[in-house]
Order: sequence, then C-alpha cells, then structure tokens
Amino acid sequence: MRNIKITVAYDGTRYNGWQRQDNTDNTIQGKIETLLSRMTGEEIEIHGSGRTDAGVHAHGQVFNFHTECRMTTEDIMEYMNEYLPMDIAVLKVENAEERFHSRLNVKRKTYCYRIWNSKIPNVFERKYSYYIPEELDVDPMKKAAEHLVGKHDFKSFCSNKRMKKSSVRVIDGITFEKDGGMLTIRYCGNGFLYNMVRILTGTLIEVGKGERDPEDMKRILESLDREQAGFTAPAQGLFLEHVEY
Amino acid sequence: MRNIKITVAYDGTRYNGWQRQDNTDNTIQGKIETLLSRMTGEEIEIHGSGRTDAGVHAHGQVFNFHTECRMTTEDIMEYMNEYLPMDIAVLKVENAEERFHSRLNVKRKTYCYRIWNSKIPNVFERKYSYYIPEELDVDPMKKAAEHLVGKHDFKSFCSNKRMKKSSVRVIDGITFEKDGGMLTIRYCGNGFLYNMVRILTGTLIEVGKGERDPEDMKRILESLDREQAGFTAPAQGLFLEHVEY
Repeated sequence: MRNIKITVAYDGTRYNGWQRQDNTDNTIQGKIETLLSRMTGEEIEIHGSGRTDAGVHAHGQVFNFHTECRMTTEDIMEYMNEYLPMDIAVLKVENAEERFHSRLNVKRKTYCYRIWNSKIPNVFERKYSYYIPEELDVDPMKKAAEHLVGKHDFKSFCSNKRMKKSSVRVIDGITFEKDGGMLTIRYCGNGFLYNMVRILTGTLIEVGKGERDPEDMKRILESLDREQAGFTAPAQGLFLEHVEY
Repeated sequence: MRNIKITVAYDGTRYNGWQRQDNTDNTIQGKIETLLSRMTGEEIEIHGSGRTDAGVHAHGQVFNFHTECRMTTEDIMEYMNEYLPMDIAVLKVENAEERFHSRLNVKRKTYCYRIWNSKIPNVFERKYSYYIPEELDVDPMKKAAEHLVGKHDFKSFCSNKRMKKSSVRVIDGITFEKDGGMLTIRYCGNGFLYNMVRILTGTLIEVGKGERDPEDMKRILESLDREQAGFTAPAQGLFLEHVEY
C-alpha cells in the first residue's frame, strides 16, 4: 500500500483546531479527510505530526496516510489545492517509505509565536499575532528563556492536569527576532505538551512587562505546578512552523 | 476652528468602501464619523484624500475635519484606537493649518497592487493579494508600464463612462518588486481615476501572461476606449499606500 506524506499550511482562525471531532466537521483534519476520501474513493484517515488548538495556524504541518490511489504526487497536489477551502493549502506531496509515520517519527518541531508590539495596532496582522501595546523589554525575556533551554520536566507549562505520560521534553533553542513592531519568538524542540508554547510565551510576556523576574523561570520549572507559570497567550499568535524527520 | 489631519490604515475586506452611503453604515468613512461625533459631541464630517472601492485596503489613507474639540492629538489617537473596529487603525493625528484639505491639497499618491504568483496558494495573504498560479513574465510587464508613465489621458483605464471632468493624469512611476511569490506593482502619480489602478493592473497581467504585447499599451491609451484595455483586477490586491501633500 502506498504511504503519502503531505505538508500543509493553514489559517486556523475559523477552525476548531486540527483534530477531527465526531460532532463537528469544522476541523482541519476533517476537511482534509473528507476531500481525500472523495479523491481516492476510499475511507481515508490521516495522521498529523500533532494537534494544533483552535485558532492556531501552520506554515508547515505534516501528515501521512495510506491509499491504493495511483495519482501522481503532482496531480494530488493540484486536486487538493483546487478543492480545499482557501484557508488550507498543500505545499508538498511526497511518496514516503512504507513505515513512515508523521507523529511517531518526528525529530524536531519549530513553533513561532508572533507579538505585534507597538502603540499603533496593525490591522493586517491582527489575526496572525497577539497585540501588546505596552513596550516589552526583550533582554530580560531572553534571559528568562535561557532557563528553559535543555531537557526539563515542563509540567508547569502544561494545561493538561491529568496527563499521565512523561512531561519531560527537550528545548533546543528559543530565539527572538524583532522586525519593526513584530516580535517573533521561535521555539525548537523534540516535542511540546498541550498549550506549552502558549504558556511559555505568556510567562515570557510577563517577564517582558517587568511583572516577573527572569530568574523566576527556574523556580516555576522546579515547582511542577501550572499555577506558578504565566497566562496562556492567545491562539492567534501561534504558528506550527515546520516539522523535521 | 481647529483642523485635524489623521492618517489611517484599514483592512477593506468587510466594508463597502471608504465613502459614506446614506442607506448603510458599513463604510470606513461612516465608522470614523460616527466615532468622532461621539468623541466630540459635534456632528463631524470628514474629508478623505479620495475614495477607495469596496474591498480595497489602505496603509495610509488621510482625512481631515474641523472641530472645537480640545483633546490633545495623543488623546484623540488613543481614544480612536480604543473604540474603532479592529480592522481600522489610526497611525497619526496632527494639527493641520486652517486651510489644509485632504483631497484638494494632494500632491502625490502611491498605490500598490499585490499579486501572489506561485503554484502554491498563500493562505495568509489570500485577502491581501490577487492569486495567479500561472507564472507571469515580469519583463514585458515592465516594458508595457513604461508607456504609461508621464502625462496621458487615461480615459481607456477608467470605469466611469459618464465622466465629464478631465481624465488627464500624470503617472510619475510604476515599479515592480518581487519578494518570494509576492509581486508588488507600485503606482505613483498626481491622481487616479475610478478603477484606474485596477484596470492598469489587469492589463499588465494580460501582458505578463503573454496574451498581449507590451506595445499594445500605446494603442490602448490612444483609443480613449475602456473596451480596449484589460480586465479590472480584483479589489483585494489593492492598497492605498500613502498620500503626499
């Protein structure tokens, strides 16, 4: 059976996130599975590299699925971009090895969180960033972020309280980029817990506003207590940037 | 009486254009006048540098109005950005000279038209550009544009058939910029007729697709006939970039 790997971008604004829900079709996975089932005449189930929450965007989400379909990768891409809604786009279609699995084989993921930090709102970025009018001090945010890099138990930065699996993850790097009013925080790591990037960002924002000390990060990590960390930054600033295998 | 000059940006997607219409409030001018009337307690009428069509965006539209209001320019800006819808933002508030008029004193306007020209759709730019999957050949477009620069009667590029005033305008320059898949065509001139930038762009696109010869532009200009020019490129790619006085 053929195994196909597909990279997609999506504007998550109007969706209930990536993962298909039984009671609604308004998910990105649902839209794609419906289309692929129509295209192949089979009942297609796709495997994403991971979920994204309601309102979160992707520049490069990856999924795979098995099919008997014999269309070329070019024809699949053309068909999908013709019939998918305008806010979902296929960037790449590849034939994958038989055993490739989009979630289980992830080596590294990159997320970015975009903050529009200016006294003047940006109307064109309002759905693709979080607007903070008061000036953030980026240097303490960088200092705070240094404490997060490496292998840690990130339980304090996870919304799922009943999580039974390990909450230990490795963050390879957190970088900051300022371009005009746009502050982009980029997180690279081997995996991220539920809401982790948004809680990390919310906590860093509190540092940038001077409400927290950069050294506070160490204590938060050690507490293993979600209540010690900052707020969950809103979904619209978050992008799954790319997934490496 | 005080004369105030304001620069605004807006995402025109959901509006019926700039100009207030009596039967609907869904215009940018309407939204701003309603807010300024509330702010000042006076009945405010604003004068824009010109209209923009339904769906057209602005990075720097300018308007002025007269008022007895004594708020500082900073307070006016803060008030407006607090209460305007999220898709309209005030960039600048200035005290203008008594005789300043946003439309009558225009020296130069810059519009840009953005085309996403790639086989792969761009979900994040879909509302802020016109998507053309087939590759455009920019060199003939540049050649065609050269014929448009200078003082000409642009009647062939105007949608208003019953226009009685002069349709002579001066275009100072048309430049092309390619950044990844985004092709931006920038038009500078002393004024533009109804739909002129969109018809110029539509005609240049037909040249870029090889459907027209660059030399055709000369003939179109001389014909003074709208039917000779190309299609009207869609509103969502067009931005009023800035207005000079």
